[in-house]
Amino acid sequence: MTTIAVDAMGGDHAPRAEVEGAILAARELGVRILLVGIEATVRQELGRHGHRGLPIEIVNATDVITMSDSPSQAFRRKKESSVHVAARLVRDGKAEALVSAGNTGAVMTVARFVLGTLAAVDRPALAAAFPNMKEKVTVILDVGANVDSKAEQIEQFAVMGEIYYRTIWGAKRPRVALLSIGEEEMKGNELTREAAARLKQLSLNFVGNVEGRDVFRGDVDVIVCDGFIGNIALKISEGLVEHIGAMLKKAIKSSLKSQVGYVLSKDAFDSFRKRTDSSEYGGAPLLGVRGITIIGHGRSNALAVKNAIRVASELCRSRFNEKIEQELSAAAVAARG
Amino acid sequence: MTTIAVDAMGGDHAPRAEVEGAILAARELGVRILLVGIEATVRQELGRHGHRGLPIEIVNATDVITMSDSPSQAFRRKKESSVHVAARLVRDGKAEALVSAGNTGAVMTVARFVLGTLAAVDRPALAAAFPNMKEKVTVILDVGANVDSKAEQIEQFAVMGEIYYRTIWGAKRPRVALLSIGEEEMKGNELTREAAARLKQLSLNFVGNVEGRDVFRGDVDVIVCDGFIGNIALKISEGLVEHIGAMLKKAIKSSLKSQVGYVLSKDAFDSFRKRTDSSEYGGAPLLGVRGITIIGHGRSNALAVKNAIRVASELCRSRFNEKIEQELSAAAVAARG
Repeated sequence: MTTIAVDAMGGDHAPRAEVEGAILAARELGVRILLVGIEATVRQELGRHGHRGLPIEIVNATDVITMSDSPSQAFRRKKESSVHVAARLVRDGKAEALVSAGNTGAVMTVARFVLGTLAAVDRPALAAAFPNMKEKVTVILDVGANVDSKAEQIEQFAVMGEIYYRTIWGAKRPRVALLSIGEEEMKGNELTREAAARLKQLSLNFVGNVEGRDVFRGDVDVIVCDGFIGNIALKISEGLVEHIGAMLKKAIKSSLKSQVGYVLSKDAFDSFRKRTDSSEYGGAPLLGVRGITIIGHGRSNALAVKNAIRVASELCRSRFNEKIEQELSAAAVAARG
Repeated sequence: MTTIAVDAMGGDHAPRAEVEGAILAARELGVRILLVGIEATVRQELGRHGHRGLPIEIVNATDVITMSDSPSQAFRRKKESSVHVAARLVRDGKAEALVSAGNTGAVMTVARFVLGTLAAVDRPALAAAFPNMKEKVTVILDVGANVDSKAEQIEQFAVMGEIYYRTIWGAKRPRVALLSIGEEEMKGNELTREAAARLKQLSLNFVGNVEGRDVFRGDVDVIVCDGFIGNIALKISEGLVEHIGAMLKKAIKSSLKSQVGYVLSKDAFDSFRKRTDSSEYGGAPLLGVRGITIIGHGRSNALAVKNAIRVASELCRSRFNEKIEQELSAAAVAARG
């Protein structure tokens, strides 16, 4: 049975969302859960739910990382935090995956340095799912684990993202693209020109460059880019969805007609907004670390936590990290010719 | 009287939108218009409208750049295009500004190389207006004229963008920010770290870094970034607005209730979408070239063309380029300090 270490103290609704999500996962997904957090708090929350006979255990952690902790400080000064303890459980082989809805930067840093990166990977990458017009998702990576990436790292992101998409989103041969810009004079920048040349050499289904506008079109499955770019793309999208929601709300004041319209169409917009919330997709995996790591949105509810555990468990069962090592080694051999 | 050269063959609705926009501008704004394009075509369109006594002249251009022309080919091979002829009118002092709703890359290239850049400017920058939650706009530059910018170029973008915002958007002391990412480990990348250090030294109101999410918040007026980043930000936003529009439309099929809701709230969304269309703001100025250049959206209607002419005329009257030269020289002197 796959064992998942769940940071019980991470999200805005911790530990309730984490505990409820863990119970749902243990009941429905056939996984064993280690709930990591301040024992009394987690035990009390667990006591409020029926969980008899479910494979859920509590592992004590005496400290908690908050959203206001800086990643480096959290990593260095809070060694007994639930994130650290959960990461050590994975490092020491007591769990196969780490799931946290905590401070993204802190979880990335702890996972990266406690677990270490895979031998074939220079830098782990954070992958986010964007809902698209084809009612599927387009995965973008990296969305913020790295800046100033080199072309060979973009290449690694492509290999990892492609395996992730195949494993979780079910496409047999995901279409992989490079995020770039459209004007010919500059067709991309130095990085994308070099990265495109490398991506063409891979055996995966690289379909070329796409523009920002194409992110939502659904014509590609995986889009790779430097983490600075991906983070801007992610945050701009979140900000714009928030903005449009607020604008529609404001519009109701303009007339009774639009007021009625707003109330009636609110469901449609809310369901769209929900689809843009990465927690609906089980959070963002940090690909390339030794041990599966899924980082949920701070707003994660129980369902989102369960989904994150589901994705973690599917990645474990598919031997995700072994595949990454194999395919990156094969790519390196091919590159050497 | 300010004279504006208008590319009559540029946009999707050319020459109709251009001619109508020119007539509106000549009538309302006290500007003189040179309509540049295939003479017979422009004359025929002009004949369909009452324009007696208005200061509008036609300047013949025998070629037309299309949306499918690559910028460099358009620049090199279509020297008699309406864009080239209009740019030469500005270069030769027969007009003060160039307005085109044509192929953005081609117009940028022609303007840059026919007009040349200002002495104090390394690279011109394209500025786009994003509507924000405060019902004002946030201007982002560069949105695609440059890639692989250096920190001193970002600094120049800030100076040019700040003057543009002051001139056109009326803020006395615009808040200028640098687009970056939020996680502490990496607070930006090499470029933003160096650019932030430079921006702090300027006398303008630099308020620090902002994230993608802040673009729509309206807490800052001008956001500077490399053109690759800005282009991704712009295109992602356009793509997402299109996507949300399509999703809301699709939602009507799900129930009668949401169908009614959609019809009733459509106005609100349409008015939002309109506000996100840069042509409502008179197009995107290419800042830093010798001669005011405004590039409208391909979809520009007559109102958008008129607005572009209005912005061009306001920039001319405010001696925009002189201010840029002065302030950049002052900044350079201060830096040598």
